[in-house]
Amino acid sequence: MEKLFTILTVIGVPVSVIGAIFHWSPVLMFVVYCLTIIALAGLIGRATESLAIIMGPRVGGLLNATFGNAVELIISIFSLKAGLIGIVLASLTGSVLGNLLLVAGLSFFVGGLKYKRQSFDIYEARHNAGLLIFAVIVAFVIPEVFTYKMNDHDTMILSVGISIILIILYLAALLFKFVTHRGVYTTNDKKSKTEEKEEEPEWGKAKAILVLAVATIAVAYVSEHLVDTFGIVGKTFGWSELFIGIIIVAIVGNAAEHASAVLMAYKNKMDVAVEIAVGSSLQVAMFVLPILVLLSLLFATSMPLVFTWPELISMVTAVLLMIMLSNDGDSNWFDGLVLLAAYVIMGIGFYFL
Amino acid sequence: MEKLFTILTVIGVPVSVIGAIFHWSPVLMFVVYCLTIIALAGLIGRATESLAIIMGPRVGGLLNATFGNAVELIISIFSLKAGLIGIVLASLTGSVLGNLLLVAGLSFFVGGLKYKRQSFDIYEARHNAGLLIFAVIVAFVIPEVFTYKMNDHDTMILSVGISIILIILYLAALLFKFVTHRGVYTTNDKKSKTEEKEEEPEWGKAKAILVLAVATIAVAYVSEHLVDTFGIVGKTFGWSELFIGIIIVAIVGNAAEHASAVLMAYKNKMDVAVEIAVGSSLQVAMFVLPILVLLSLLFATSMPLVFTWPELISMVTAVLLMIMLSNDGDSNWFDGLVLLAAYVIMGIGFYFL
Amino acid sequence: MEKLFTILTVIGVPVSVIGAIFHWSPVLMFVVYCLTIIALAGLIGRATESLAIIMGPRVGGLLNATFGNAVELIISIFSLKAGLIGIVLASLTGSVLGNLLLVAGLSFFVGGLKYKRQSFDIYEARHNAGLLIFAVIVAFVIPEVFTYKMNDHDTMILSVGISIILIILYLAALLFKFVTHRGVYTTNDKKSKTEEKEEEPEWGKAKAILVLAVATIAVAYVSEHLVDTFGIVGKTFGWSELFIGIIIVAIVGNAAEHASAVLMAYKNKMDVAVEIAVGSSLQVAMFVLPILVLLSLLFATSMPLVFTWPELISMVTAVLLMIMLSNDGDSNWFDGLVLLAAYVIMGIGFYFL
Repeated sequence: MEKLFTILTVIGVPVSVIGAIFHWSPVLMFVVYCLTIIALAGLIGRATESLAIIMGPRVGGLLNATFGNAVELIISIFSLKAGLIGIVLASLTGSVLGNLLLVAGLSFFVGGLKYKRQSFDIYEARHNAGLLIFAVIVAFVIPEVFTYKMNDHDTMILSVGISIILIILYLAALLFKFVTHRGVYTTNDKKSKTEEKEEEPEWGKAKAILVLAVATIAVAYVSEHLVDTFGIVGKTFGWSELFIGIIIVAIVGNAAEHASAVLMAYKNKMDVAVEIAVGSSLQVAMFVLPILVLLSLLFATSMPLVFTWPELISMVTAVLLMIMLSNDGDSNWFDGLVLLAAYVIMGIGFYFL
Repeated sequence: MEKLFTILTVIGVPVSVIGAIFHWSPVLMFVVYCLTIIALAGLIGRATESLAIIMGPRVGGLLNATFGNAVELIISIFSLKAGLIGIVLASLTGSVLGNLLLVAGLSFFVGGLKYKRQSFDIYEARHNAGLLIFAVIVAFVIPEVFTYKMNDHDTMILSVGISIILIILYLAALLFKFVTHRGVYTTNDKKSKTEEKEEEPEWGKAKAILVLAVATIAVAYVSEHLVDTFGIVGKTFGWSELFIGIIIVAIVGNAAEHASAVLMAYKNKMDVAVEIAVGSSLQVAMFVLPILVLLSLLFATSMPLVFTWPELISMVTAVLLMIMLSNDGDSNWFDGLVLLAAYVIMGIGFYFL
Repeated sequence: MEKLFTILTVIGVPVSVIGAIFHWSPVLMFVVYCLTIIALAGLIGRATESLAIIMGPRVGGLLNATFGNAVELIISIFSLKAGLIGIVLASLTGSVLGNLLLVAGLSFFVGGLKYKRQSFDIYEARHNAGLLIFAVIVAFVIPEVFTYKMNDHDTMILSVGISIILIILYLAALLFKFVTHRGVYTTNDKKSKTEEKEEEPEWGKAKAILVLAVATIAVAYVSEHLVDTFGIVGKTFGWSELFIGIIIVAIVGNAAEHASAVLMAYKNKMDVAVEIAVGSSLQVAMFVLPILVLLSLLFATSMPLVFTWPELISMVTAVLLMIMLSNDGDSNWFDGLVLLAAYVIMGIGFYFL
């Protein structure tokens, strides 16, 4: 799989550039761009995995989430610039759903096929559960219900206020986790942590960082052109803006998390897999999305923090399901299957919407 | 109570046949049919209890749920045939509510009057909680919100898709519970299980199975005629289709579970009581209902997986309440009272709807 | 702070009386009344703290909640008499939100700044969580959804029915907690309870009770006049009835809980702090509110148990957040910050509504 990604990158990036210059068929280029981004995300995944081994599982999980979401952030900024607010909210919804249901579901399922029971840090799971409830069920539901009869100006003030609070709370969560309460909430599974350290990183620190930087720039370039193809692709396949954003963009944008989270689950490092899936959802909801709301004030069309009802209800139910399944700090193939089934149900729903 | 059920059966079945032939007053026959079904369900309850003792608590719980829901399934098929889709969805809603709130509530309450604290398998409770969230909060809520602006054709495709996923997941849950993870999640209450085995079954295996078979056929006969009386009974008492389905049909159809679950709770076998109540809800939501959606494609009117809002919200809140109260694997009379109070509130609501 | 409250009372009560007689500016008097009530509530807080020490933490928590809510109940009765149903429901919503988010949030946050981890009774937290789900998510959500197409008469019957069930269940909860299951659910932190008993009460039993009685009467007098100023104050500051009820009245009415809960948290008596915050919310939802619904039958305008959607959704999300954060029986500054952030978001929302 690693060689495949390298080959795809070596072919995909120049083809993307040439195709963009010579105005090849948008549908063809849509496929090329998607595959190239997936391949680049694969490289980013390998680079972050190497860094994760060098710098420990917690920081590793954070790095994974950050660089997976860099792709998300980059695509969203170009969409925002193009005034495609619907696609931005849809792709971020898709990212939250994809991480909570598809990434975590595949991790639990694939890991569960190899191991009968896999466990992960119960304190971490509960801490994340509180944040998921706060972000999705408080910060996203409140504006949906409150702005029903509100004018656009007040809606935007409320959106900006909530966005600022989300960012402050996200930073406070990092402060809590890495500074004031580092190591305060721990379980007694020191053994597994020792095993992890024995593993060798694929790349050195310098090479990993270089690959990260170059791949991220390439993703930015390709993303900008990808966004331009949405209109024609949607018409060609009969896909709505919502479906493209929630399913296609989210899967393409999260391929890195997919690859590395499932790999970690297969290696029985569930702490890292869950950190990638849930941590990434949280980062999208509490950091990427509010940043985009604030950035949108600089563009022609500002983006309020108001989802469509199907988007919101999908996120709310996904959060409740994930919390219920992860609250015991234990996973198995069936937990994974339940999450995947929820993803498929939502996917069918968004297709027909 | 056992003699009463036997006498009721011996009188009720012939009276049902004669009354149906000579076209006696529908209101009178409605009462006769209901009492006969309750009595037959009582027989089914005793037969399954005997089988439960012979075959162990887990299989016993499953048997109880299956044969309680056989009554449900039979009534629903006749309602579906008569085109009474509203009554089918209402009676299945009522079955989920009745099992989660009334059956479990009575079990907790009656058991709690005798024992100060009763405990049940916490792993089982959590496993069931995940499935309840999946079935009710994901699989039922999603079509409700998504089909708001959808045409009938797409609504039906989404309904069929979700139904197939529910059935697959239900079968996967059985595979998980009885094959791949049998005995993986266990608590250390081996002692109570040894005690259970000392009990003698009332009937032998052959007699129990014979009673099950005959009583189930009789229920089918009576149910078909019961469905025909709904229209006139509703007009006579001022009951809506919804109220008949949710409260009357559900109580009549679940009398077997009521009898056996409360009996088990009184004998301090809370694992079986909870398995009957929650397991039965899950079987209705994840198996009986999707099967009926698929079967409805064969009839004149197909049934989408779209409840009325009061039905849906009642189930969602019942699930959240049940999960909160059962998540600690411990019950008492007050937990039971809370569940019963929720049932009464919903009952009043449906009466005035 | 204690001297400040005494001085405020000594000045505030006569100024309130004089200002009311000579019809001073309503906006000025609004401020005077609010400050006087806060000061009186402070006195009530000190008196209840003394009684709490004398009579133990559980009864102390109950006393705190009762007398904090006496203020609430008194203001509400005068609002009801004035036909201001919207303000009553809003101020009770505000009281539930204020206790769950602001009082508990400040307690967790302030306590968490001093102690790295604070723990409270996990059984108590779960018992309360079940009641919160019952009261807010079942008893408040059901009428909202069911009365959508119901006429006023049926709506009122359903409201009265639910109110009676809530009161019965609240009394049953007291019976459960203090009679049938007293000491049945306990954790092994006897040590901290011994320490508590060493503390000296500020006032004797007789003085504390006297202060409670006089301050409560004074609160009643001031509240009646406070209610009359709402109309003009709202117009002057551009505040809606909803905002005055939910934020202003709730903060003024709950100042006693604020003061004593945060004090308890600072002294690491988290059991008492949580009992005040959550117990007070429960008392408002399960006792004060249903009593007011029943009392409203005696007035010109009867009050149904139907909130506005923003009120209801705020309470539902606050309950889910609180349950998630308190379910592990452990708090820290970050948990507090999350609750406070949720309160601020709702506050902004209600301001712009």
